[in-house]
Amino acid sequence: MGEITEACRTFVVNDPNLTVYEVLRLLRILEGETTIGGITCKMTVSSVMAALGFLYYKGMLRVDRERLTVKLTSKVEWDVKSLVELEIRGAVYALSRAEALRDALKKRDMEIIYEFSQLPINYDSLMRKFAFMQSFQDVDGKEIIFVGDDDFLSVTCSLLGRPKRVVVVDLDERLLEGIRELSDKYGLEIETYKHNFIYPLPDELQGSFDTFCTDSPHCLGGILLFVSRGVSALKRGTETAGYFVFQTVNEPLLMTFETRQKLLKLITNEMNGVIYGMLPASIKYITPRNEDEKLMEVFLEATKRPSLEEYYRHVEETLKPSSKFIEFYPEFSMETSMITRVVFREPKPLIEGEYNKKAEEKYGPIYSWAIIEQHIAKEK
Amino acid sequence: MGEITEACRTFVVNDPNLTVYEVLRLLRILEGETTIGGITCKMTVSSVMAALGFLYYKGMLRVDRERLTVKLTSKVEWDVKSLVELEIRGAVYALSRAEALRDALKKRDMEIIYEFSQLPINYDSLMRKFAFMQSFQDVDGKEIIFVGDDDFLSVTCSLLGRPKRVVVVDLDERLLEGIRELSDKYGLEIETYKHNFIYPLPDELQGSFDTFCTDSPHCLGGILLFVSRGVSALKRGTETAGYFVFQTVNEPLLMTFETRQKLLKLITNEMNGVIYGMLPASIKYITPRNEDEKLMEVFLEATKRPSLEEYYRHVEETLKPSSKFIEFYPEFSMETSMITRVVFREPKPLIEGEYNKKAEEKYGPIYSWAIIEQHIAKEK
Repeated sequence: MGEITEACRTFVVNDPNLTVYEVLRLLRILEGETTIGGITCKMTVSSVMAALGFLYYKGMLRVDRERLTVKLTSKVEWDVKSLVELEIRGAVYALSRAEALRDALKKRDMEIIYEFSQLPINYDSLMRKFAFMQSFQDVDGKEIIFVGDDDFLSVTCSLLGRPKRVVVVDLDERLLEGIRELSDKYGLEIETYKHNFIYPLPDELQGSFDTFCTDSPHCLGGILLFVSRGVSALKRGTETAGYFVFQTVNEPLLMTFETRQKLLKLITNEMNGVIYGMLPASIKYITPRNEDEKLMEVFLEATKRPSLEEYYRHVEETLKPSSKFIEFYPEFSMETSMITRVVFREPKPLIEGEYNKKAEEKYGPIYSWAIIEQHIAKEK
Repeated sequence: MGEITEACRTFVVNDPNLTVYEVLRLLRILEGETTIGGITCKMTVSSVMAALGFLYYKGMLRVDRERLTVKLTSKVEWDVKSLVELEIRGAVYALSRAEALRDALKKRDMEIIYEFSQLPINYDSLMRKFAFMQSFQDVDGKEIIFVGDDDFLSVTCSLLGRPKRVVVVDLDERLLEGIRELSDKYGLEIETYKHNFIYPLPDELQGSFDTFCTDSPHCLGGILLFVSRGVSALKRGTETAGYFVFQTVNEPLLMTFETRQKLLKLITNEMNGVIYGMLPASIKYITPRNEDEKLMEVFLEATKRPSLEEYYRHVEETLKPSSKFIEFYPEFSMETSMITRVVFREPKPLIEGEYNKKAEEKYGPIYSWAIIEQHIAKEK
């Protein structure tokens, strides 16, 4: 693999997409029969031609002159077949690491995570997010900052990708401790910072990253604040990328048409971000067992009614709007959330100073604030 | 199916997502074991509860109180399994229609399509685009306009979905004739208009559609012009959607960071569009055989050289930049294109009048213009 990449690099030095990941994608395509024009990967025509030449001279390429197609002479041994079969084609390097990841995730303390009104994403969503980032080449060789990381995506990227530097910033020391333990166990060298995003990032983290990732509270204020902190961490004058997640459908608290319009205008016009990808229905959360229990209770209680009409009436009476965050509202749409990738060159954080009353008035309250304040008070 | 939808409607009248398509999605999820909280579809909690009640009273739902899960008692017979397995879960209604579609597509005259420097999308991409539109509920019950349709997506939507009205506007009479033939054969009632997009849409098409689709020339001027025409066709004061396609990676002619930034700013700020989805690497085109031949020639000629170094040298010398559209440049990235979905409420077309020299100066030339003019001259 490295050999092909190196050989291509010798020939074409100017293709920024000539990474191990892209070569893996090319090999994957060549497993099937394809015309040269039919190859689809981010590499340039020159680089693809170089790679084909390399494979041909090594006797690894079968050419059908009649059908105008090329194909590998033998199957590539893929380490982690199931992961590369995700919606966005991705590739990872070692099965043992993927298994380590599954183990690692099992060790997350869900109680701690739920305590902050956070919902962690499920395993498939985590892999999809990693593959999405890989497909844009935002992991390998990159300096990445995680603005909050209850999902342990930092561990995922470090285990399955080849990042240059990984930093996690989070308010919860217990979560950071969990990440540090895994980092030590697997030699990942993840750096952790305890920090409250009400305040700007520490100076040493500003302007020094290629990629940021955040899965903020899903309200306008929360997204703008966390994305702003991520943006403040990006390098200037070069192409960098940021990932955030938000609800895709209307429901009482979150993403109405107007809120989405406001969010996208602020990102486009104020923060100089250009959207490069928005994957609908891509992120699913793990709901706490007590939420599942509540819904099941409503359902089971209703099914004791003698008829479908009575069932309907009971459900309607029982499902009442509530102000609690994780709880299900009757009008809450059950759709999964959306990952968005934004590219920057001259990024400008919308919120630069403290997220105080004034900022809150302008961009909206962050609903898990009260929970965070309680936590801080308890700690003192 | 209709029975479940109707039963739910009786109970919850206010869920706009309570369509046959969403109920199909729900049933698909219930094939597997899931908690109620773990169900992910666009329907609200109320609608999901109603559907579960219906299934339960009909004896079609198995409830595991211990594991808090629900599941169908028997497997649903899916008509077109392979289509629903696409990246975006979609559902279509009859296998026979899917087969009709395959036949229909075979009848496209590729020579006519290539003559306009158009590249049709391949079958998988067509299905992915349809499923993407379905997943956003932009097909069933909707009035849809196709701003150019060399892909026969109009036929796809009519055969596999349940649109209320389908209109195709295109410059090439031969292409429209092909669509009309299929429409007659399958009773699709597709309306066709011959029109040059240099000029605004006919009055009777303005302001009357829920959805527009375009796969314009992939240059800034081309995208802005075709999207503007699409936008002019949308209804006002209600949520409508538009789809367009563009290249996702840097290459000489198309989508640099600056061009993308300009495009997205114009859509967001001038046209009042809000991006709701952007599916990377989703659309692949069918390249003409002579393009494949050219690339294969370069490759085969190069492999006659005695060494890999000589091979590289030959490729480098042979691949020279050219000004022709479909041809492959050495620096052309081979990545597939991107579908984008934009939502509007008060849409405003950027370009309202004729696309003349003045508009061209402002938004850039459209590269297939010369070819279109030649065609018009030849027709006269």
